[in-house]
Amino acid sequence: MPHIPLPEGMFGIRAAMAYRPETAKPLNELVEVLLHQPNSLTPGERELIATYVSYLNDCYYCQTIHGAIAAASLNGDEALVKRVKADFQHADISDKLKALLVVAAKVQKGGKNVTTEDIEAARAVGATDLEIHDTVLIAAAFCMYNRYVDGLATTQPEDEAMYRERGIRVAKEGYVAVSKSYLPAEVVAG
Amino acid sequence: MPHIPLPEGMFGIRAAMAYRPETAKPLNELVEVLLHQPNSLTPGERELIATYVSYLNDCYYCQTIHGAIAAASLNGDEALVKRVKADFQHADISDKLKALLVVAAKVQKGGKNVTTEDIEAARAVGATDLEIHDTVLIAAAFCMYNRYVDGLATTQPEDEAMYRERGIRVAKEGYVAVSKSYLPAEVVAG
Repeated sequence: MPHIPLPEGMFGIRAAMAYRPETAKPLNELVEVLLHQPNSLTPGERELIATYVSYLNDCYYCQTIHGAIAAASLNGDEALVKRVKADFQHADISDKLKALLVVAAKVQKGGKNVTTEDIEAARAVGATDLEIHDTVLIAAAFCMYNRYVDGLATTQPEDEAMYRERGIRVAKEGYVAVSKSYLPAEVVAG
Repeated sequence: MPHIPLPEGMFGIRAAMAYRPETAKPLNELVEVLLHQPNSLTPGERELIATYVSYLNDCYYCQTIHGAIAAASLNGDEALVKRVKADFQHADISDKLKALLVVAAKVQKGGKNVTTEDIEAARAVGATDLEIHDTVLIAAAFCMYNRYVDGLATTQPEDEAMYRERGIRVAKEGYVAVSKSYLPAEVVAG
Protein backbone atom coordinates (compact mmCIF):
# COMPACT_ATOMS: atom_id res chain seq x y z
CA MET A 1 0.00 0.00 0.00
CA PRO A 2 1.38 3.44 -0.88
CA HIS A 3 2.74 5.56 2.01
CA ILE A 4 0.28 8.36 1.11
CA PRO A 5 -3.20 8.05 -0.45
CA LEU A 6 -2.44 8.07 -4.19
CA PRO A 7 -5.25 7.88 -6.79
CA GLU A 8 -6.70 4.35 -6.86
CA GLY A 9 -6.35 2.17 -9.94
CA MET A 10 -3.16 3.98 -10.99
CA PHE A 11 0.26 2.40 -10.78
CA GLY A 12 3.90 3.37 -10.39
CA ILE A 13 4.93 6.89 -11.27
CA ARG A 14 1.58 7.67 -12.91
CA ALA A 15 -0.15 7.51 -9.52
CA ALA A 16 2.47 9.83 -8.01
CA MET A 17 2.23 12.23 -10.97
CA ALA A 18 -1.57 12.32 -10.83
CA TYR A 19 -1.31 13.14 -7.11
CA ARG A 20 0.97 16.15 -7.76
CA PRO A 21 0.46 17.48 -11.31
CA GLU A 22 2.62 20.56 -10.63
CA THR A 23 5.73 18.40 -10.40
CA ALA A 24 4.47 15.90 -13.01
CA LYS A 25 4.80 18.54 -15.72
CA PRO A 26 8.60 19.05 -15.52
CA LEU A 27 9.12 15.34 -14.73
CA ASN A 28 7.37 14.39 -17.99
CA GLU A 29 9.11 17.11 -20.01
CA LEU A 30 12.52 15.98 -18.78
CA VAL A 31 12.01 12.34 -19.75
CA GLU A 32 10.49 13.42 -23.09
CA VAL A 33 13.68 15.33 -24.03
CA LEU A 34 16.02 12.66 -22.69
CA LEU A 35 14.39 9.54 -24.09
CA HIS A 36 11.94 10.46 -26.85
CA GLN A 37 13.02 13.58 -28.73
CA PRO A 38 15.38 13.21 -31.72
CA ASN A 39 18.94 12.37 -30.68
CA SER A 40 21.99 10.68 -32.20
CA LEU A 41 21.34 7.87 -29.69
CA THR A 42 18.23 5.97 -30.77
CA PRO A 43 15.20 5.82 -28.47
CA GLY A 44 15.95 2.10 -28.02
CA GLU A 45 19.52 2.84 -26.88
CA ARG A 46 18.38 5.53 -24.46
CA GLU A 47 15.58 3.35 -23.07
CA LEU A 48 18.14 0.57 -22.49
CA ILE A 49 20.23 3.00 -20.40
CA ALA A 50 17.12 3.97 -18.40
CA THR A 51 16.14 0.31 -17.98
CA TYR A 52 19.62 -0.72 -16.86
CA VAL A 53 19.88 2.04 -14.24
CA SER A 54 16.37 1.19 -12.96
CA TYR A 55 17.45 -2.45 -12.73
CA LEU A 56 20.56 -1.44 -10.72
CA ASN A 57 18.28 0.58 -8.41
CA ASP A 58 15.99 -2.44 -8.09
CA CYS A 59 12.88 -0.50 -9.15
CA TYR A 60 10.41 -3.07 -10.53
CA TYR A 61 8.00 -0.60 -12.11
CA CYS A 62 10.64 1.50 -13.89
CA GLN A 63 12.78 -1.34 -15.17
CA THR A 64 9.68 -3.14 -16.46
CA ILE A 65 7.98 -0.21 -18.19
CA HIS A 66 11.20 1.16 -19.66
CA GLY A 67 12.23 -2.36 -20.64
CA ALA A 68 8.92 -2.62 -22.49
CA ILE A 69 9.43 0.75 -24.18
CA ALA A 70 12.97 -0.30 -25.11
CA ALA A 71 11.69 -3.57 -26.60
CA ALA A 72 8.95 -1.74 -28.51
CA SER A 73 11.66 0.58 -29.90
CA LEU A 74 13.83 -2.43 -30.87
CA ASN A 75 11.37 -4.41 -33.02
CA GLY A 76 9.95 -6.21 -29.99
CA ASP A 77 13.30 -7.73 -28.98
CA GLU A 78 12.51 -8.48 -25.32
CA ALA A 79 15.37 -11.00 -25.15
CA LEU A 80 17.88 -8.23 -25.86
CA VAL A 81 16.50 -6.13 -23.00
CA LYS A 82 16.88 -9.07 -20.59
CA ARG A 83 20.39 -9.72 -21.86
CA VAL A 84 21.43 -6.10 -21.33
CA LYS A 85 20.22 -6.24 -17.73
CA ALA A 86 21.93 -9.56 -17.02
CA ASP A 87 25.25 -9.01 -18.82
CA PHE A 88 25.42 -6.06 -21.20
CA GLN A 89 29.07 -6.63 -22.09
CA HIS A 90 28.00 -9.78 -23.96
CA ALA A 91 24.75 -8.43 -25.39
CA ASP A 92 24.31 -7.70 -29.09
CA ILE A 93 24.66 -3.92 -28.76
CA SER A 94 27.28 -1.48 -30.07
CA ASP A 95 30.61 -0.94 -28.35
CA LYS A 96 29.54 2.68 -27.93
CA LEU A 97 26.41 1.72 -26.01
CA LYS A 98 28.45 -0.68 -23.85
CA ALA A 99 30.86 2.15 -22.96
CA LEU A 100 27.93 4.48 -22.16
CA LEU A 101 26.34 1.80 -19.94
CA VAL A 102 29.62 1.66 -18.00
CA VAL A 103 29.34 5.44 -17.44
CA ALA A 104 25.66 5.11 -16.47
CA ALA A 105 26.46 2.39 -13.92
CA LYS A 106 29.11 4.62 -12.37
CA VAL A 107 26.64 7.52 -12.12
CA GLN A 108 24.12 5.20 -10.47
CA LYS A 109 26.62 4.57 -7.64
CA GLY A 110 27.42 8.30 -7.39
CA GLY A 111 28.62 10.99 -9.79
CA LYS A 112 32.22 11.03 -8.54
CA ASN A 113 32.69 7.41 -9.66
CA VAL A 114 32.87 8.46 -13.32
CA THR A 115 36.56 8.61 -14.31
CA THR A 116 38.44 10.32 -17.12
CA GLU A 117 39.26 6.81 -18.35
CA ASP A 118 35.54 5.91 -18.57
CA ILE A 119 34.95 9.02 -20.69
CA GLU A 120 37.99 8.41 -22.89
CA ALA A 121 36.88 4.82 -23.44
CA ALA A 122 33.45 6.04 -24.58
CA ARG A 123 35.00 8.63 -26.92
CA ALA A 124 37.33 5.99 -28.38
CA VAL A 125 34.32 4.01 -29.63
CA GLY A 126 32.57 7.05 -31.05
CA ALA A 127 30.56 8.65 -28.23
CA THR A 128 30.05 12.41 -28.69
CA ASP A 129 30.10 14.99 -25.91
CA LEU A 130 26.32 15.35 -26.12
CA GLU A 131 25.85 11.57 -25.91
CA ILE A 132 28.07 11.50 -22.82
CA HIS A 133 26.13 14.41 -21.31
CA ASP A 134 22.79 12.76 -21.98
CA THR A 135 23.96 9.40 -20.63
CA VAL A 136 25.04 11.05 -17.36
CA LEU A 137 21.73 12.90 -17.08
CA ILE A 138 19.59 9.86 -18.02
CA ALA A 139 21.36 7.80 -15.35
CA ALA A 140 21.04 10.62 -12.80
CA ALA A 141 17.37 11.20 -13.66
CA PHE A 142 16.50 7.54 -13.17
CA CYS A 143 18.15 7.66 -9.76
CA MET A 144 15.41 10.22 -9.10
CA TYR A 145 12.46 8.52 -10.82
CA ASN A 146 13.31 5.15 -9.18
CA ARG A 147 13.51 6.72 -5.70
CA TYR A 148 10.28 8.62 -6.28
CA VAL A 149 8.39 5.48 -7.33
CA ASP A 150 9.75 3.27 -4.52
CA GLY A 151 10.03 5.99 -1.86
CA LEU A 152 6.24 6.46 -1.97
CA ALA A 153 5.70 2.67 -2.10
CA THR A 154 3.57 3.03 -5.25
CA THR A 155 1.53 0.04 -6.40
CA GLN A 156 3.46 -1.93 -9.04
CA PRO A 157 1.43 -4.83 -10.44
CA GLU A 158 3.27 -7.80 -11.94
CA ASP A 159 1.35 -7.82 -15.19
CA GLU A 160 3.63 -8.21 -18.22
CA ALA A 161 0.83 -7.61 -20.70
CA MET A 162 0.02 -4.22 -19.15
CA TYR A 163 3.62 -3.02 -19.36
CA ARG A 164 3.97 -4.36 -22.92
CA GLU A 165 0.85 -2.53 -24.07
CA ARG A 166 1.88 0.73 -22.39
CA GLY A 167 5.41 0.36 -23.70
CA ILE A 168 4.20 0.16 -27.29
CA ARG A 169 2.11 3.27 -26.82
CA VAL A 170 4.81 5.39 -25.14
CA ALA A 171 7.40 4.29 -27.73
CA LYS A 172 5.05 5.51 -30.46
CA GLU A 173 3.56 8.67 -28.93
CA GLY A 174 6.07 9.81 -26.31
CA TYR A 175 5.75 10.66 -22.63
CA VAL A 176 4.04 14.03 -22.71
CA ALA A 177 1.37 12.89 -25.19
CA VAL A 178 0.56 9.75 -23.19
CA SER A 179 0.46 11.75 -19.94
CA LYS A 180 -2.71 13.42 -21.28
CA SER A 181 -4.51 10.19 -20.40
CA TYR A 182 -3.87 10.57 -16.67
CA LEU A 183 -3.06 14.25 -15.98
CA PRO A 184 -5.35 17.32 -15.97
CA ALA A 185 -5.40 18.96 -19.41
CA GLU A 186 -4.07 22.31 -18.15
CA VAL A 187 -0.91 20.62 -16.84
CA VAL A 188 -0.04 18.91 -20.11
CA ALA A 189 -0.80 22.00 -22.17
CA GLY A 190 0.80 24.47 -19.72
CA MET B 1 38.37 19.72 -15.51
CA PRO B 2 34.88 18.80 -16.69
CA HIS B 3 34.53 15.50 -18.60
CA ILE B 4 33.02 17.35 -21.58
CA PRO B 5 33.74 20.94 -22.72
CA LEU B 6 31.22 22.96 -20.68
CA PRO B 7 30.96 26.77 -21.08
CA GLU B 8 33.98 28.45 -19.46
CA GLY B 9 33.59 30.69 -16.44
CA MET B 10 30.43 28.87 -15.38
CA PHE B 11 30.27 26.57 -12.37
CA GLY B 12 28.36 23.54 -11.10
CA ILE B 13 24.95 22.83 -12.54
CA ARG B 14 24.79 26.20 -14.31
CA ALA B 15 27.57 25.11 -16.68
CA ALA B 16 25.76 21.84 -17.39
CA MET B 17 22.45 23.64 -17.92
CA ALA B 18 23.99 26.21 -20.26
CA TYR B 19 25.48 23.32 -22.27
CA ARG B 20 22.07 21.67 -22.73
CA PRO B 21 19.25 24.25 -22.41
CA GLU B 22 16.60 21.71 -23.56
CA THR B 23 17.02 19.73 -20.34
CA ALA B 24 17.77 22.85 -18.25
CA LYS B 25 14.19 24.03 -18.72
CA PRO B 26 12.42 21.14 -16.92
CA LEU B 27 15.29 20.85 -14.40
CA ASN B 28 14.75 24.48 -13.38
CA GLU B 29 10.97 24.19 -13.36
CA LEU B 30 11.11 21.13 -11.12
CA VAL B 31 13.31 22.77 -8.50
CA GLU B 32 11.21 25.95 -8.70
CA VAL B 33 8.05 24.02 -7.75
CA LEU B 34 9.77 21.90 -5.12
CA LEU B 35 11.81 24.56 -3.32
CA HIS B 36 10.53 28.03 -4.19
CA GLN B 37 6.78 28.03 -4.91
CA PRO B 38 4.35 28.48 -1.99
CA ASN B 39 4.13 25.40 0.22
CA SER B 40 3.20 24.58 3.82
CA LEU B 41 6.91 23.79 4.29
CA THR B 42 8.87 27.05 4.26
CA PRO B 43 11.54 27.64 1.59
CA GLY B 44 14.13 27.41 4.39
CA GLU B 45 12.84 23.98 5.48
CA ARG B 46 12.82 22.67 1.93
CA GLU B 47 16.29 24.06 1.21
CA LEU B 48 17.56 22.32 4.36
CA ILE B 49 16.23 19.00 3.02
CA ALA B 50 17.97 19.65 -0.33
CA THR B 51 21.18 20.68 1.44
CA TYR B 52 21.18 17.63 3.70
CA VAL B 53 20.65 15.17 0.83
CA SER B 54 23.39 16.90 -1.19
CA TYR B 55 25.67 16.61 1.84
CA LEU B 56 24.89 12.86 2.10
CA ASN B 57 25.70 12.54 -1.60
CA ASP B 58 28.96 14.45 -0.99
CA CYS B 59 28.22 17.03 -3.70
CA TYR B 60 30.20 20.15 -2.79
CA TYR B 61 28.51 22.53 -5.22
CA CYS B 62 24.93 21.54 -4.36
CA GLN B 63 25.33 21.40 -0.58
CA THR B 64 27.08 24.78 -0.61
CA ILE B 65 24.71 26.67 -2.89
CA HIS B 66 21.56 25.17 -1.32
CA GLY B 67 23.07 25.71 2.13
CA ALA B 68 23.51 29.36 1.16
CA ILE B 69 19.93 29.60 -0.13
CA ALA B 70 18.71 27.93 3.07
CA ALA B 71 20.66 30.41 5.21
CA ALA B 72 19.35 33.34 3.16
CA SER B 73 15.81 32.01 3.76
CA LEU B 74 16.51 31.66 7.49
CA ASN B 75 17.62 35.20 8.35
CA GLY B 76 21.23 34.40 7.43
CA ASP B 77 21.56 31.62 10.02
CA GLU B 78 24.55 29.78 8.52
CA ALA B 79 25.28 28.08 11.85
CA LEU B 80 21.90 26.31 11.71
CA VAL B 81 22.65 24.98 8.23
CA LYS B 82 25.98 23.56 9.45
CA ARG B 83 24.29 22.06 12.49
CA VAL B 84 21.62 20.33 10.38
CA LYS B 85 24.31 18.74 8.22
CA ALA B 86 26.38 17.62 11.20
CA ASP B 87 23.60 16.41 13.54
CA PHE B 88 20.07 17.44 12.63
CA GLN B 89 18.48 15.58 15.54
CA HIS B 90 20.03 18.15 17.89
CA ALA B 91 19.54 21.19 15.66
CA ASP B 92 17.05 23.94 16.49
CA ILE B 93 14.45 22.81 13.96
CA SER B 94 10.90 21.46 14.39
CA ASP B 95 10.20 17.82 15.21
CA LYS B 96 8.32 17.67 11.91
CA LEU B 97 11.38 18.71 9.91
CA LYS B 98 13.51 16.20 11.84
CA ALA B 99 11.06 13.43 10.91
CA LEU B 100 11.07 14.53 7.26
CA LEU B 101 14.89 14.58 7.23
CA VAL B 102 14.79 10.95 8.41
CA VAL B 103 12.58 10.14 5.40
CA ALA B 104 14.86 12.12 3.05
CA ALA B 105 17.95 10.26 4.29
CA LYS B 106 16.20 6.93 3.63
CA VAL B 107 15.30 8.02 0.09
CA GLN B 108 18.91 9.05 -0.50
CA LYS B 109 20.01 5.45 0.19
CA GLY B 110 17.20 4.07 -2.02
CA GLY B 111 13.42 4.42 -2.13
CA LYS B 112 12.70 1.01 -0.59
CA ASN B 113 14.39 2.08 2.65
CA VAL B 114 11.43 4.28 3.61
CA THR B 115 9.27 2.34 6.07
CA THR B 116 5.67 2.65 7.22
CA GLU B 117 7.11 3.52 10.65
CA ASP B 118 9.10 6.46 9.20
CA ILE B 119 5.90 7.80 7.61
CA GLU B 120 3.82 7.27 10.77
CA ALA B 121 6.49 9.05 12.81
CA ALA B 122 6.34 12.04 10.45
CA ARG B 123 2.54 12.12 10.56
CA ALA B 124 2.59 11.93 14.39
CA VAL B 125 4.47 15.25 14.52
CA GLY B 126 2.20 16.94 12.01
CA ALA B 127 3.53 16.15 8.52
CA THR B 128 0.82 16.20 5.84
CA ASP B 129 0.59 13.81 2.89
CA LEU B 130 1.73 16.54 0.52
CA GLU B 131 4.70 17.37 2.75
CA ILE B 132 5.67 13.70 2.78
CA HIS B 133 5.28 13.54 -1.01
CA ASP B 134 7.41 16.63 -1.53
CA THR B 135 10.08 15.45 0.89
CA VAL B 136 10.40 12.16 -1.02
CA LEU B 137 10.59 13.98 -4.35
CA ILE B 138 13.03 16.65 -3.11
CA ALA B 139 15.34 13.91 -1.80
CA ALA B 140 14.96 11.91 -5.03
CA ALA B 141 15.52 14.98 -7.20
CA PHE B 142 18.73 15.89 -5.38
CA CYS B 143 19.98 12.35 -5.98
CA MET B 144 19.67 13.41 -9.64
CA TYR B 145 21.05 16.95 -9.44
CA ASN B 146 24.03 15.80 -7.34
CA ARG B 147 24.88 12.99 -9.79
CA TYR B 148 24.50 15.35 -12.74
CA VAL B 149 26.86 17.93 -11.23
CA ASP B 150 29.51 15.43 -10.13
CA GLY B 151 29.06 12.91 -12.98
CA LEU B 152 30.16 15.59 -15.46
CA ALA B 153 32.97 16.71 -13.11
CA THR B 154 31.75 20.32 -13.25
CA THR B 155 34.00 23.07 -11.89
CA GLN B 156 33.06 23.84 -8.26
CA PRO B 157 35.10 26.74 -6.85
CA GLU B 158 35.59 26.96 -3.10
CA ASP B 159 34.48 30.57 -2.80
CA GLU B 160 32.06 31.09 0.08
CA ALA B 161 31.32 34.68 -0.91
CA MET B 162 30.16 33.60 -4.38
CA TYR B 163 27.74 31.01 -3.00
CA ARG B 164 26.47 33.43 -0.35
CA GLU B 165 25.76 36.12 -2.93
CA ARG B 166 24.04 33.68 -5.28
CA GLY B 167 22.10 32.16 -2.41
CA ILE B 168 20.64 35.52 -1.44
CA ARG B 169 19.55 36.16 -5.02
CA VAL B 170 17.96 32.73 -5.60
CA ALA B 171 16.18 32.87 -2.22
CA LYS B 172 14.67 36.18 -3.27
CA GLU B 173 13.91 35.66 -6.97
CA GLY B 174 13.63 31.89 -7.42
CA TYR B 175 15.34 29.44 -9.78
CA VAL B 176 13.59 30.14 -13.06
CA ALA B 177 14.01 33.93 -12.75
CA VAL B 178 17.72 33.65 -11.94
CA SER B 179 18.24 31.14 -14.76
CA LYS B 180 17.56 34.00 -17.19
CA SER B 181 21.07 35.23 -16.39
CA TYR B 182 22.72 32.13 -17.88
CA LEU B 183 20.21 30.45 -20.25
CA PRO B 184 18.98 31.58 -23.69
CA ALA B 185 15.83 33.71 -23.36
CA GLU B 186 13.66 31.34 -25.45
CA VAL B 187 14.33 28.49 -23.01
CA VAL B 188 13.30 30.40 -19.92
CA ALA B 189 10.23 31.86 -21.59
CA GLY B 190 9.30 28.60 -23.40
